[in-house]
Amino acid sequence: MNTQPVDFSASHAATALKNLRVSNPLVHCLTNDVVQSFTANVLLAIGASPAMVVDPTEAAQFAAIADALLVNVGTLTQPHADAMLAAVQAANQAGKPWVLDPVAVGGLTLRTEFSLTLIQLTPAAIRGNASEIRALSGMSSTGRGVDSGDDSLSALPAARKLALQTGAIVAVTGEMDYVTDGERCLAVRGGDVLMTRVVGTGCALSAVVAAFVALPGDRQENVAAACRVMSCAGELACQQARGPGSFIPAFLDNLYLLDGEALQ
Amino acid sequence: MNTQPVDFSASHAATALKNLRVSNPLVHCLTNDVVQSFTANVLLAIGASPAMVVDPTEAAQFAAIADALLVNVGTLTQPHADAMLAAVQAANQAGKPWVLDPVAVGGLTLRTEFSLTLIQLTPAAIRGNASEIRALSGMSSTGRGVDSGDDSLSALPAARKLALQTGAIVAVTGEMDYVTDGERCLAVRGGDVLMTRVVGTGCALSAVVAAFVALPGDRQENVAAACRVMSCAGELACQQARGPGSFIPAFLDNLYLLDGEALQ
Amino acid sequence: MNTQPVDFSASHAATALKNLRVSNPLVHCLTNDVVQSFTANVLLAIGASPAMVVDPTEAAQFAAIADALLVNVGTLTQPHADAMLAAVQAANQAGKPWVLDPVAVGGLTLRTEFSLTLIQLTPAAIRGNASEIRALSGMSSTGRGVDSGDDSLSALPAARKLALQTGAIVAVTGEMDYVTDGERCLAVRGGDVLMTRVVGTGCALSAVVAAFVALPGDRQENVAAACRVMSCAGELACQQARGPGSFIPAFLDNLYLLDGEALQ
Repeated sequence: MNTQPVDFSASHAATALKNLRVSNPLVHCLTNDVVQSFTANVLLAIGASPAMVVDPTEAAQFAAIADALLVNVGTLTQPHADAMLAAVQAANQAGKPWVLDPVAVGGLTLRTEFSLTLIQLTPAAIRGNASEIRALSGMSSTGRGVDSGDDSLSALPAARKLALQTGAIVAVTGEMDYVTDGERCLAVRGGDVLMTRVVGTGCALSAVVAAFVALPGDRQENVAAACRVMSCAGELACQQARGPGSFIPAFLDNLYLLDGEALQ
Repeated sequence: MNTQPVDFSASHAATALKNLRVSNPLVHCLTNDVVQSFTANVLLAIGASPAMVVDPTEAAQFAAIADALLVNVGTLTQPHADAMLAAVQAANQAGKPWVLDPVAVGGLTLRTEFSLTLIQLTPAAIRGNASEIRALSGMSSTGRGVDSGDDSLSALPAARKLALQTGAIVAVTGEMDYVTDGERCLAVRGGDVLMTRVVGTGCALSAVVAAFVALPGDRQENVAAACRVMSCAGELACQQARGPGSFIPAFLDNLYLLDGEALQ
Repeated sequence: MNTQPVDFSASHAATALKNLRVSNPLVHCLTNDVVQSFTANVLLAIGASPAMVVDPTEAAQFAAIADALLVNVGTLTQPHADAMLAAVQAANQAGKPWVLDPVAVGGLTLRTEFSLTLIQLTPAAIRGNASEIRALSGMSSTGRGVDSGDDSLSALPAARKLALQTGAIVAVTGEMDYVTDGERCLAVRGGDVLMTRVVGTGCALSAVVAAFVALPGDRQENVAAACRVMSCAGELACQQARGPGSFIPAFLDNLYLLDGEALQ
């Protein structure tokens, strides 16, 4: 019996962010070609350390050194898939958490089949939009590209199914973000439509989720904290920006300056 | 008998931009490693949707889903060429327009030979600087890298020849931009020398050309509209910027805020 | 007998920067996936021209055309290594200087073995942080990722050893930068801790080193000038920025506007 979504507490987000800045997790990012720089800058701004190590052998070596691993299939090719699989296996062997961002999974064959293989390898978390989460759970989807044709609430049943099936915390993000372990569901408000006019805000969120799942404590609350940190910095940046161009520096500044007071 | 270049009308640019924002074309970008993020942000700012799908099989699947395809050979490798060729063939089969940006074609073998093959596959438009257009047309060139050693007007005969030879609308861009179908030529003023100090303004223009060729209406005017939208946002941004760093956010903001009044 | 580090003279930096802007060197960058756009924008802002040509055959062709070559192993794969080796050999044959940035060399096998091969091919300069320079010199290191666990002064003996062994000017950078030919050592102050929260400042410095080694004159002083130009623009940008987001445009603007007066 599934409970209704519960609003995520701002004080939990503040505590998790404080923990993150103390522990400075090293996040191994195997992500798409488009968002590498933005992803690294987002991680640096919140107080984590990014590293992109992409050769299959090195990726496996590095997954054991890093505190968490991100796998994002946005510009997947077969060589990328080889490195990702090697890194996931090494992370699992070393007991390090890893996060999947199933970008545009659904209609495209290579990424869809590969993501269906990956979710059998115990991801700590999965972060996607409504159509990606639906597609990954086996439910139908209306996505045409990286933008979702579904709203996040309508994909909550798919997110719950996917969480139960994989053991991962599943975050389905959109105007509202929902973070579920299959039963309990946390709702995270915030963000702004302007964020959909900047490439990589969703992909960077998945990297931030990877940073937060490296922390001790309740994993579901840590994933919700990642969502809240990003949506809060996004809201503040939108108030300060003229458009998507000035949003980007303002967003990174706000991530860097964010504290418990802003998160309330 | 070739007519003199005619100034492109601002009201046509305004109409095309309005159409673009209503139809929100999905542009499949197979572009170079350096400009992926900027290209995506430019497309999002004007009101189009970017997607970079690079595996050969997926690129072919996606070319049939997208509204237009961009092929930019700036950091070409053989695996990229395979994906580009598959995508162009799929786009042609699905009746979707595609655009070529022949970055630094001339002295470098792989990209030159590949671009000469591609132009036989009915591109909707080709956008390059003077030395690239000369080289692609078989005329001699003085380019040494991505920057052109020729001015755009002097390459207009080469552009006309290339347009007649390929059936594409050819845009040769520089201080002035010339857009030709082989006979009629539209001249688009604007831009600023500061834009040459920011990487990817030309590459992003080609992506914007791809977004505009997905629109109904006169293709040559749509390509000229793409040039004018970019040069107008660039001029405004240069007035607001201290240098190339502050130009970038100002440029994206101006693309986002641009309206018919600004285009006049 | 090694002399103590000597403060690098601001007037030498100003002269070198003036020379750079007159000669506008074309820098061939074979660098990592994360920093390509930022690297290109930094080179454009200081008055150099970047070009990323990555196919092995084209990279070899282009290395002979460019004025200098940068090799950065941050996201090394075997295909990248093939292109880098071809480009280094072509640069050497054409008498063009090349620079190595040994990102995260130490614990990761492919990049470490490859960098140890490369340093036998007469680099003009090597730029790294303390743990990278230690690892490359065969001394032990404490680095875990791209951030150095050592301070730059403590790695000066390793830098001197590496310089004598390779014939390269070695720059070991951190809070203070030290530039050595194995005997004489120039100390370059400046920079700001905020620069460590922005991805690619070190990688872009290596590209700027490549631009400066293309200049005539004392190579060691030219490398020190590259360090000073970057640290000076960084300091100015930090005074103007709210955080790492606004640092980026301010940094590029300051590089563009930098003159002899600011460098003093």
